Parts: sequence; structure tokens; C-alpha cells
Amino acid sequence: MGVTALCPGTFDPVTNGHLDIIERAGKHFDTLVAAVLQNPAKEPLFPLDERVAILKEAVAGLAGVEVDSFDGLLVDFARARGAGVIVKGLRAVSDFEYELQMAHMNRRLTGVETFFVMSEPRWSYVSSSLIKEVAAHGGDVSGLLPDFVRERLVDKLEGSD
Amino acid sequence: MGVTALCPGTFDPVTNGHLDIIERAGKHFDTLVAAVLQNPAKEPLFPLDERVAILKEAVAGLAGVEVDSFDGLLVDFARARGAGVIVKGLRAVSDFEYELQMAHMNRRLTGVETFFVMSEPRWSYVSSSLIKEVAAHGGDVSGLLPDFVRERLVDKLEGSD
Amino acid sequence: MGVTALCPGTFDPVTNGHLDIIERAGKHFDTLVAAVLQNPAKEPLFPLDERVAILKEAVAGLAGVEVDSFDGLLVDFARARGAGVIVKGLRAVSDFEYELQMAHMNRRLTGVETFFVMSEPRWSYVSSSLIKEVAAHGGDVSGLLPDFVRERLVDKLEGSD
Amino acid sequence: MGVTALCPGTFDPVTNGHLDIIERAGKHFDTLVAAVLQNPAKEPLFPLDERVAILKEAVAGLAGVEVDSFDGLLVDFARARGAGVIVKGLRAVSDFEYELQMAHMNRRLTGVETFFVMSEPRWSYVSSSLIKEVAAHGGDVSGLLPDFVRERLVDKLEGSD
Amino acid sequence: MGVTALCPGTFDPVTNGHLDIIERAGKHFDTLVAAVLQNPAKEPLFPLDERVAILKEAVAGLAGVEVDSFDGLLVDFARARGAGVIVKGLRAVSDFEYELQMAHMNRRLTGVETFFVMSEPRWSYVSSSLIKEVAAHGGDVSGLLPDFVRERLVDKLEGSD
Amino acid sequence: MGVTALCPGTFDPVTNGHLDIIERAGKHFDTLVAAVLQNPAKEPLFPLDERVAILKEAVAGLAGVEVDSFDGLLVDFARARGAGVIVKGLRAVSDFEYELQMAHMNRRLTGVETFFVMSEPRWSYVSSSLIKEVAAHGGDVSGLLPDFVRERLVDKLEGSD
Repeated sequence: MGVTALCPGTFDPVTNGHLDIIERAGKHFDTLVAAVLQNPAKEPLFPLDERVAILKEAVAGLAGVEVDSFDGLLVDFARARGAGVIVKGLRAVSDFEYELQMAHMNRRLTGVETFFVMSEPRWSYVSSSLIKEVAAHGGDVSGLLPDFVRERLVDKLEGSD
Repeated sequence: MGVTALCPGTFDPVTNGHLDIIERAGKHFDTLVAAVLQNPAKEPLFPLDERVAILKEAVAGLAGVEVDSFDGLLVDFARARGAGVIVKGLRAVSDFEYELQMAHMNRRLTGVETFFVMSEPRWSYVSSSLIKEVAAHGGDVSGLLPDFVRERLVDKLEGSD
Repeated sequence: MGVTALCPGTFDPVTNGHLDIIERAGKHFDTLVAAVLQNPAKEPLFPLDERVAILKEAVAGLAGVEVDSFDGLLVDFARARGAGVIVKGLRAVSDFEYELQMAHMNRRLTGVETFFVMSEPRWSYVSSSLIKEVAAHGGDVSGLLPDFVRERLVDKLEGSD
Repeated sequence: MGVTALCPGTFDPVTNGHLDIIERAGKHFDTLVAAVLQNPAKEPLFPLDERVAILKEAVAGLAGVEVDSFDGLLVDFARARGAGVIVKGLRAVSDFEYELQMAHMNRRLTGVETFFVMSEPRWSYVSSSLIKEVAAHGGDVSGLLPDFVRERLVDKLEGSD
Repeated sequence: MGVTALCPGTFDPVTNGHLDIIERAGKHFDTLVAAVLQNPAKEPLFPLDERVAILKEAVAGLAGVEVDSFDGLLVDFARARGAGVIVKGLRAVSDFEYELQMAHMNRRLTGVETFFVMSEPRWSYVSSSLIKEVAAHGGDVSGLLPDFVRERLVDKLEGSD
Repeated sequence: MGVTALCPGTFDPVTNGHLDIIERAGKHFDTLVAAVLQNPAKEPLFPLDERVAILKEAVAGLAGVEVDSFDGLLVDFARARGAGVIVKGLRAVSDFEYELQMAHMNRRLTGVETFFVMSEPRWSYVSSSLIKEVAAHGGDVSGLLPDFVRERLVDKLEGSD
């Protein structure tokens, strides 16, 4: 049994910032489900199966952390998984306002609660999209995401994947 | 004659958040014109005539409130309607900064003044776009917009409209 | 008769930023009462009668603008003056959040509405307290407040008042 | 045993905003300790024993919620209580930045994690200090805090306590 | 020799806000390179050669200011030009957060430092995109960009360029 | 000769966050003067001579960095030192707004320019006042300021200094 929490995202691909939130939050719940959004508004670089596979490999060592994917409303997925809590990392004030809006709407829809966790300062400027932009122009992004993910990213950007 | 104010928006469709601002502001002007922007940057779900018709029905009981539509610069429409004041609802800090920029530009163009009204807290997380997103995935949005608008929205999303 | 609005403040002393808001807002109401708070939390430099006298002189040329003072709750004073609207200038995001809190509380207490007006950019960094601090160290604050107010301020700071 | 979380504050006195956070967060932990700071920087209106007694009465019906008090570093109290999580309500962007700073410092000191919960919109403008200010001037604060707390507050402000 | 700084942008077209930053920052470096981004994410109105030519004409009178263009990572261009400093204008809080993210990433990539300069208040609401939007609807944007740039803009929008 | 910049503060006492800004900014100017404000509004823990002595020791290894102290307006001190630039670290949005106000006022007074540098993320939550508060309650602040400063702080707080 126990308490289940969801940590949703596009994970295109997972960064050290995501992993920090997942690892820290995971310690305080019986199960933490890293939930990959299947069809984000912006076309992802990695298809769903790759995003899920990479994320699974990245969290393999974390006890109580599972990976799953969903489409549609996050609150419906939370209900299906028996999760009463959503966990989100916050990096900046602009994050804060958008996430505030979503948290209120989600609570209104099903009563699911959202707990926010502050990003570790050293990851505060790290996002999947900025990493992809830098890597696409040949910039060095090592240290911002796990090595095997960085290699997958470089391969993908070079079209050899 | 009296003082005329404009309350501009896309109203795609009108929400209880919009109506709260229109009703509250309307009490303090002789005429408040809810002004529907004809061609917003993002393709609207409802065509102009439907957005106008729905808005008219929603404000039918409010004394001194009219509905009209415009294209081009809001300041030109304000001049055409003899309105010296624009009324805008503010929900969040990000709203604040964008609206600040528009208010300064509009005042520079024609001297029209913008009065900002704080959204009622219970509508602070409500926007047409979030309502459409939730409704499109089958979420319950009742209470966030008038019932007849919700029905029109569900019909539209199911393609039966 | 007509619509009366209040523009509250400590006015210790009045700045060009205050006057800009009073002048701009005053055009859109039958009466605008610049309302001087008698006993602000922080001990004012100018006593109440001087703050009122200076403000009266500064707004002498503005049609429909009156000066009055109040103590206690602003909403009680608004009711006493028959004012249904409070007008506040906004300079920055931090202003925004505090004023948001007050606006909601005031509306809850008596239904009085608050209209916010964006400060003219060139006065966006001007406040009575910063002006006093600069003038106290001999800095030149001319152009930031009316000349006769600046002279009163310099006299006051030199203790010859 | 189970997971223990702390919800710290001055609670001078407890408001409906505090109670909403305590009730919502309390559902997701085995024990939630509402932790009253003994000696806040600003002299409290209610002495510690009254703040604790009022809070105890207010949370009497909430399963798994306890009341305790602490002085010194919150992280030391968290360790003493075996709590690995701090829960804080967030109302506004300015809250966000201060709390961010404290959350990082606390995590650095002992590894304790802070989960942030967004305030229910209708309590977003409610704070103990604003309630005290309004009540001190005779304003009606009913509905913003439990009735018995409001009565204690009015008595205290009238000096009959 | 001396210290070289970069001031990057799309300059589509250059505004008085850009020129204010370039002129002010230019005084404090031996060389300031206004660096035109060749291929911004959003299709520019003016092609690269026109953006560069207009900018060159606009900064012709400023000692130590050069114009150049780049593609790819700004940090690579900074290295190629021997620039250890990037200069950016800040207008608003939302600018602040995005620029913060970029500044940290850029410093991580090559150690290049970013100095931020606050926009002059009177240009605080001016952006190339808002100017283009207003001008496209026939609004008067004179005073917000140099006259010869405004003429080029009007010609371009009328398709006669 | 060369370009001189000022980095002002209370430095009560200097932290690793201050030193990071001084070191980074110092590389880009011929002389960087760390300028200690003699009489801050809040009574400092360390008297002026100790704040200056500690800061001098902390920056001893940094080429081109000097320590000085001032009272009154920063712009007067800048003129006396022949400094045309002020350098400030920015940590958060609330810093941003206050510093924006000061930067505009300072530029208006004498034309002195302010360059802002973003705090290194790992120091983003570090301030002298938070360090003093934590240390006063026996919390471990090592790593947040140089070791010899931490020792001086602990001695001072224990009253043995």
C-alpha cells in the first residue's frame, strides 16, 4: 500500500535537474511514479518509447521510483495510479505562476494535491530545451545530464540514432 | 453623456473570470464595452460571431454593458467608441508585465488610460485556454464559466457544433 | 453628484510620481480625493498639517481634485466620502503583490473597488523615501517633485523649518 | 512508525489560511506537527502559551495533526521530532523568494526537505498581520479565521484579555 | 587591445531602447560589438543584411562600437572576437529570469561573464516586436526608433521595400 | 589610469557570495574598489574597522581589487574615486526591483552606470544576515564564507571578540 506520488514531465530527455527532484522527493513517499507525458504540445525530439527507456535507465538505482507514461489529464492518470500527490520542481518565478494555475485546477478537478520542491541551485538554469539548443550547436553539456543520456542526445542530434 | 470604458479580450469563450471583471468594472462607468478582438494571433476555437453572441448572452443582465468587436489597434477602436479608459483584469505577475508594456504604449499612442482590476481570487487560475484544454480531455469545468457556455464548449469540442 | 474616487497615501512629501497618478486618474472621475493617511506606521518627516498643505498647493490647478485626510481603515473613510473606487499607482512587481492583498481585503470589507494605474516610466523609480534619503545626503532631487516641495524638503532636513 | 512533517509558523493567531494548509498537508503524512515559533523577530500579540492553546483547539478535529513549539533553528527541532519534511504554504512571489532561500539553507544544514503547498485562492490575501491590522481598526474579519479565534483576537485588542 | 564586450540581439529592427544600452555600455569598454543573430527562432521581418546595415547606420556616431553578425552559440562568437563580457539590457522581471538562465549557461560553457544594464525607464516598454505590431496597424511609432529606421519599417510593412 | 568600478556593500561580514562577485567582476576592470558602507540603516554586528579589515584579508589575493569605505551617497564616493561604474550582484527578483530603483536614481544623479552580475547559483541563497542568524543558533555555516571569517563571526557571536 502506502502513499504514491506522481512526478510528471516530458523528459525530452531527462536532465540532472529532473533526477535531483525525483531522487529527493522519492525518499518521502512509498512510491514515486515519474510520469512521461506522451504527446506534449511541442513535438518532442525523442519519441515516447525512448524517453521512457532513458528515464528508466536513469532512475534504475532509486528505490521506490517507477516510470510510467500517460496522455490526457494528469489528474485522470493520478486517479488510475492511486496517487494523491503530484510533485513538481520549481526553478523560477515564471514556473511558479504557471504551476500555481495548474495546481489549483488539478485540486479543483479531483482533490489531488501538488507539493512543490525547489530545484537545487546548481540545476536552476538547466532545462531540457536549453540543453538541446546548446548541444545542437556543438556546446558541451556534460555534467548537466547523465553521460549515457548526453551520448544519446548527441547521436540523435547528429541523426545517427 | 458619460464615461465609456473598454474591456478588451478574445473571449474564446467568455469565463466567469471575465464576467467578474466586466460586472465589477461596469458599475463604475456609464458604459462598459466588452470588446471582442476579431483576429487574435492564435486561431480561436469559436469564430467571431459565436464569441460575440455568447458574450452578449452572458452579459445580458448587466446594466450599461455592451458588446462590440474590433480589429487592428485597440486605441483606434477606443477613439471610435469615445472611450477614454481601458479596463483589464490582472491575475498574476506575468500578466502584470505584459499589460504594463501595452498600457504604456497605448497611452503614448492616444492618451487612453488603462485601469487594472485584480481578479477575484477564486477565478485567479481560470483562463479560456486552460478551460479548453481541460474540457478537451473530458475534465469537468462546470462552475468556471456559465452553464450555457460550457455546453456550447463541449458541443464545439465534440465537433457537433 | 457623480462618481468619487480616493487616492490614498502618506504623501511625505508628495512627488511627481504621485501627482502624475492623481492628474491622470482625476480626469476619469467627477471627484478624486487625494487622501492623506494621518498616522502611518513609520513616523513621517512632515506632520499631517504640512503634508496636507503641501499636497493642496500641488494639486491646486487640477479640476475635480480635493485633498482630505483620514485615520483608521481606508474603507471606512471611503464610505464616509461616498467613494466607491480607490485608485492606486503601481510601480513594480513588489508593489503589485502587497496592493493585491489590500485590494482583496478592502473589497471584502465593504465592496469598494480598487483601480490600479501604471506609473509613468520616468517616475517608476521615484518614491518619497528615496527622495528623502538622497536629499538628506545633499543629492540633487530637482525634477522629481515640484520645486516648492523640494525647497520645503531641504528646509525641513536642515532643521530650519 | 511513519513519516513526520513540520508546518512552522508564528500563528499569531492562526488563520483559515494556516488551517487550510495544515489540513491539506496533514492528509499526506502520518504525523503533521504544527510548530509554533516561540520568539519571532517581531513581538507577537499573543504570548506563546495562548498561540499554542488556540492552535490546539483549532486543529482538534484533524487526525494526525499535533501542535508543538520550538525556538532556535527549525532544522534542529525537525531533527528532534524525527521530521524529514517541512511543509510551507505559498501565497505570492515574494513569499516564494524568501522561502526558497530558507529551503536551500535548511537542506544544506541537515538535509531536511521542504514541500511547498499553494494557498487556496480564497485565503491568498489573508495573513495574521493584515487581520490584526483590520480588526484593530474595527473592521470585520469574520470568515477569515475560526470564530473562537476572532473573539479571542477582539478581546485581546480591546485589552480585556 | 583592450577589453571587448558583445551586445547580442536580433535587431529586427534596432530601437531606441537597443541604442540606449549600446551607447551607455559602449563608454565603459574599449570595443563594444553589437552582434546580430543571423537566424533567430522567429522569422525576422528584415533579412540579415538589412538588419546589419540599419544597425551600422544607427551606431555610426558611437566611438568604439562595431557591428558584426553571428550564428550558433553566442559563446563561440565571443571567443572568436576575443570578448570576455556580454552586455544585456534588462527591462522586466520576465527578462530577468530568462537572461539569468542564459548567463549561467554561458558562463559554464566558456567562462564568459554577462553584465546586465537596466533599460532607461522611457524605453522600458519598447520592443522591436511591439513596434512592428503597432506600425503594422498604422500606429505612430515615431520617437521609439530612429527616424530613418521608422521609414524603413513602414516601407517594409507596405511591401514597397 | 584605466577603468575603475565600485562594488558597494555592508559586508557584515563578507560572504563567499560577495567574494564571487568581486572576483568575477574584478577581472574586467583595471581597478575594482570593494566599498564598505560605514553606517548602514541596520546596526551592523561588526564595526566598520573590522568589516574593512576582514574584507581586505579576504580579497588579498585578487589583483586589481582594493577595499575602501564610504558614507553618504554612493555616487559622491564614486566621483571621488573616479569610478564610472557600479557593480552589483543580483540574486533574486526582489533584489532586482530594489536595485533597479537605485540604479536609475544613481544614473540620474551623476551619470554613473550600474552593471549587474548574476550570483553564482550555489551562493544564490547566501546572505550575511541569514548566515548570522543561522550561526547565532549554533548552525554550521562553514563553506558559505571563508574559514577565518567564520571563526571571527563565531567569536563575535559568543561575545569573546
